[in-house]
Amino acid sequence: MREAEVQIVEVGPRDGLQNLKEFVETEKKISLIKRLAECGLREIEVGGFVHPKAIPQFQDIKEMAGGLLGIKGVTLMALVPNLKGAENAVQSGIKKIVFVFSVSRSHNMNNVKRTPEESLEELQKIKEWSSSQPDVEVRVNLATVFGCPFEGNVKNEDVFRCIEGIGKIGMSEITLCDTVGYGNPRQVEEITSTCLKEYPRIIFGVHFHNTRGLGLVNNLAAYKSGIRSFDSSIGGLGGCPFAPGASGNVATEDAVFMFSEMGIETGVDIDRLLKTSQYLKEILPDVPLTSALFRAGLPVQTGSAYCH
Amino acid sequence: MREAEVQIVEVGPRDGLQNLKEFVETEKKISLIKRLAECGLREIEVGGFVHPKAIPQFQDIKEMAGGLLGIKGVTLMALVPNLKGAENAVQSGIKKIVFVFSVSRSHNMNNVKRTPEESLEELQKIKEWSSSQPDVEVRVNLATVFGCPFEGNVKNEDVFRCIEGIGKIGMSEITLCDTVGYGNPRQVEEITSTCLKEYPRIIFGVHFHNTRGLGLVNNLAAYKSGIRSFDSSIGGLGGCPFAPGASGNVATEDAVFMFSEMGIETGVDIDRLLKTSQYLKEILPDVPLTSALFRAGLPVQTGSAYCH
Repeated sequence: MREAEVQIVEVGPRDGLQNLKEFVETEKKISLIKRLAECGLREIEVGGFVHPKAIPQFQDIKEMAGGLLGIKGVTLMALVPNLKGAENAVQSGIKKIVFVFSVSRSHNMNNVKRTPEESLEELQKIKEWSSSQPDVEVRVNLATVFGCPFEGNVKNEDVFRCIEGIGKIGMSEITLCDTVGYGNPRQVEEITSTCLKEYPRIIFGVHFHNTRGLGLVNNLAAYKSGIRSFDSSIGGLGGCPFAPGASGNVATEDAVFMFSEMGIETGVDIDRLLKTSQYLKEILPDVPLTSALFRAGLPVQTGSAYCH
Repeated sequence: MREAEVQIVEVGPRDGLQNLKEFVETEKKISLIKRLAECGLREIEVGGFVHPKAIPQFQDIKEMAGGLLGIKGVTLMALVPNLKGAENAVQSGIKKIVFVFSVSRSHNMNNVKRTPEESLEELQKIKEWSSSQPDVEVRVNLATVFGCPFEGNVKNEDVFRCIEGIGKIGMSEITLCDTVGYGNPRQVEEITSTCLKEYPRIIFGVHFHNTRGLGLVNNLAAYKSGIRSFDSSIGGLGGCPFAPGASGNVATEDAVFMFSEMGIETGVDIDRLLKTSQYLKEILPDVPLTSALFRAGLPVQTGSAYCH
């Protein structure tokens, strides 16, 4: 297999499962993550080190992390809202921390009970701490970059001010997150191309939701700008409990399919991935999976009349 | 409202309804089309002049066309497989004929029981006849341009040979159709940019299905190449009875939303369009509508925690 030209970052076990009311048994989550790793996904966000009252799904996160220690060749990541979460994650064997904060004040207050400035201070502490931790990486998830469920439009200047602040702290990896599926390809092109031009020392990724069907077009727009790291979620799991009917993250199957069909190597075995979607369907029979590829299957020559 | 920068061609009443087992009452179809026209859609494909055994849904096509005669400012189109269909359409008051044939031999044989060469001969007859018909336009739907359900890949050279043939007959409008959702953005960019460069006298449109989630990315790729006419179907109606689970055409709501969010004027009133989707849902309660925008609604500031 050729070397991967784009990095598909699997975030389903974290972003997909976090809003499910149903608690998924630890063993099943571990099995799902192991299967995802066997598909060739090289970065997997496995959960969050947060207060169990905030996200009950991750009450077993330490046990889960323990069960994943043996996986080779994969970077396991976990979401953390603060330094304490980061310390817990690393103590549990996680080597890559995802620190999240939002450009928009009201979303950040709601999400992590801090102003963006306070989040930057917390990030500074995490950076200082992480410098003394061998082999620990920190990625910043910058949320509401393309729009905010509370404030609507988010100004590009506010986005870039946040990125400036993150850059000054010395962080080298930022994922631009479209929290609830507000982004459009033109805006994505503008923001990502400016980021790549103005902050050449930072590695940027993108994280889109498919709420109104624009997840893949936004991935394509970001790819055209030069972005090479794309978050997605197996089965399209995810979505927001406050947006009924909305579908979730870009589905990993669909992202891999799009790039593969374009001749862009993802390093992911798509047949194995679809078997993993099937496993997900078995462990979560009542959760609708929104992946179009999973629904339709890979192209086959069936033959049909009157389809044009 | 600004002048439309892209033409959204509504094909739902034809491509969306043709495969439904359920016969939709004539009055309801007429009402749907009238509502679509009121949304600002300027071209609507209303049905097909085909043998009622082939597509029972269109057994009332003459009556339907009669009920639509009074609509102003909209070009009503109908699919025809041959000259006889074209004559019947024009006799019923339809001013724009859509003649369909496929690049791939086996799909054309299956679909219209002719070789592509025989279809070109039929098109020649339609062209000669249409020259004597005042105000009648003919559009060619070239099917299986991006792949064939029987033959798999379709060679670009075969596509261009068909276009050459259509051009020689003197046709001025061709829609490149992705019959069962095989296209990918790179291929779309290649084919559409070559078409626009090599055949500057022909107006090209595109017609994508969203079978594996790539409908909108393909629209975006075609737009970037310079295509300005896009077929889509209200509610995402359509799809192929031989591809279970596959979703149908690109949803009109999603196409309009994507372009609108990018600041590209479509001329379509999106609020009115969503009311029309709602009407469609009422008249076809058992048919799943796959439009992401219809499912999620327009963006609102609801507020939510833990969506990132």
